[in-house]
Amino acid sequence: MKIHPMWQDYPNIATDLVEMLQLIEDNIHVRNKEIEQTMLDLIHAGGKLLRPAYSLLFSSFGPNQQKEKNMAVAAALEVLHMATLVHDDVIDDAPTRRGHETVQSKYGKDIAVYTGDYLFTVCFRLLAKYADSLEAIEMDTKGMERILMGELDQMHLRYNQDVTIRQYLKRISGKTAQLFALSCYSGAFESGCSKELSRKSYDIGNNIGMAFQIMDDILDYSQTADGFGKPVLEDIKQGVYTSPLIYAMQGHKEAFRPLLAKGQDMTTTDVAKIQALIKQYQGVEKAHKLATKYTNKALKDMSKLPDTPEKEQLILLTKNLLARVL
Amino acid sequence: MKIHPMWQDYPNIATDLVEMLQLIEDNIHVRNKEIEQTMLDLIHAGGKLLRPAYSLLFSSFGPNQQKEKNMAVAAALEVLHMATLVHDDVIDDAPTRRGHETVQSKYGKDIAVYTGDYLFTVCFRLLAKYADSLEAIEMDTKGMERILMGELDQMHLRYNQDVTIRQYLKRISGKTAQLFALSCYSGAFESGCSKELSRKSYDIGNNIGMAFQIMDDILDYSQTADGFGKPVLEDIKQGVYTSPLIYAMQGHKEAFRPLLAKGQDMTTTDVAKIQALIKQYQGVEKAHKLATKYTNKALKDMSKLPDTPEKEQLILLTKNLLARVL
Repeated sequence: MKIHPMWQDYPNIATDLVEMLQLIEDNIHVRNKEIEQTMLDLIHAGGKLLRPAYSLLFSSFGPNQQKEKNMAVAAALEVLHMATLVHDDVIDDAPTRRGHETVQSKYGKDIAVYTGDYLFTVCFRLLAKYADSLEAIEMDTKGMERILMGELDQMHLRYNQDVTIRQYLKRISGKTAQLFALSCYSGAFESGCSKELSRKSYDIGNNIGMAFQIMDDILDYSQTADGFGKPVLEDIKQGVYTSPLIYAMQGHKEAFRPLLAKGQDMTTTDVAKIQALIKQYQGVEKAHKLATKYTNKALKDMSKLPDTPEKEQLILLTKNLLARVL
Repeated sequence: MKIHPMWQDYPNIATDLVEMLQLIEDNIHVRNKEIEQTMLDLIHAGGKLLRPAYSLLFSSFGPNQQKEKNMAVAAALEVLHMATLVHDDVIDDAPTRRGHETVQSKYGKDIAVYTGDYLFTVCFRLLAKYADSLEAIEMDTKGMERILMGELDQMHLRYNQDVTIRQYLKRISGKTAQLFALSCYSGAFESGCSKELSRKSYDIGNNIGMAFQIMDDILDYSQTADGFGKPVLEDIKQGVYTSPLIYAMQGHKEAFRPLLAKGQDMTTTDVAKIQALIKQYQGVEKAHKLATKYTNKALKDMSKLPDTPEKEQLILLTKNLLARVL
């Protein structure tokens, strides 16, 4: 089973992730073999598997080293992530994801909606089968709700040129940070860590997730030499404004207003103008500073974790992940 | 709080159902108040609430009479049902449901997909909070999976003129009967009934659900004096064939083939011809016979339940529900 090349530097995590993917595979059974294959393709599409990786690393800190359970929790989180991606693709009418045709593009939105639903149930089945307590499930449903609330908020904020950094942070907190927080928390809690350590793990995951999403937004804005990449172009047209744009707009709203108001009718010239404005007002630099703040918070809290080989891996992974070049 | 008038004859169940709806209401919190209101409207749209009613009735047979828990299980089942309806509406592009504008028609499919997802999580939250055991959750996720599998199969069978009664039964077993079975089972199991009685409750629910769905399909076919109602017309055009049509086609496929093949291009004359053929080949009568078989199985098993006032209500309700006139 092939996983993302980034894990070559972490052989222990890589071995665990392969096992985790196998567990997901063993838990997907759909009568319609074509649809089953689509789900298996999703698993093997080479996603980064960050959420289960963090969950597994944090599960090393507890006294209960039941490998089967730790694996199941990690798998449940990745399946939950997959479910939200499939539904996101339905909503964005996305033709491809990770280089593969999306479920909705291949089979239509009907199948894609139910496929996402099916994956949600697989997530809960994995948890119910291996988790020790209903508390874990309650925590996970609450996490899931926050994630969905983040998505619903995103809808709500579309085309809102007055969106503030605070609203943006609230949105990515629901959309991305919650799942990272849940991953770190579940790993710690299910392996028997104290409430305090579990809570701290949640905070660390939350800060990693915030930094990760801001970095992702920045990368979209600085992808190519001669203009934005396609994702950011689509985002702007669809009224989804992220941190580099929001920072650049602070105090300079009037310059952006007529350009953004065009929405889907934006021309190449308009986009070039927006890009120049973001550069002029240092949107990317300001966003990067914010990401660094979250990264440093996470790393500082991590340094207080018990001294184990996994702690070292955790710090290394997080540094490499969040110190991506501009 | 108003509920469906059918419950006027069952004052005890009616009181419980109102309380159950209140519990659902108390568990729905969305930051976006407009979307929250849409969910509350769904709750108050006057659905029949059959699934929670059966769950509550079966919960009377166990030794553990924890009302809060029984209510939560019933509420979880109704919320699960609502979630599947919202996603069904996305897929069918339905403009109205129970006389109200659908979520997807009002807010777009984006919001509708996430609204359904949110309701799924409310279902699991209710179960995790009140259920005694992870076993219940595992059972519910398995039930949910079977329901989704039924939907995926339905997609698969569309426009298949060779669909057999057996395939039809398998489909409605997933689509409808599973949730009725799950409702009766959960009520019994969570109130502490023996494994045997819980299993029997599952079978009873399954047979009620099968009969209910066949009756529903029949009603669609016999709704109006001068033709099919709109739902059945849409179903046939979209390639969804139910029992009256499938029975009529047995041994007479060639008569139907050219008409059905037109799909969305079907004319009023084509539809009239199909209707005449179904009448000629007694499709409705044969389907009704099948429904009666399931009803009788359910009633026979019910007669062996412990003799309580609730048992009497259960038999009365089931008889009234499934003996609807042709």
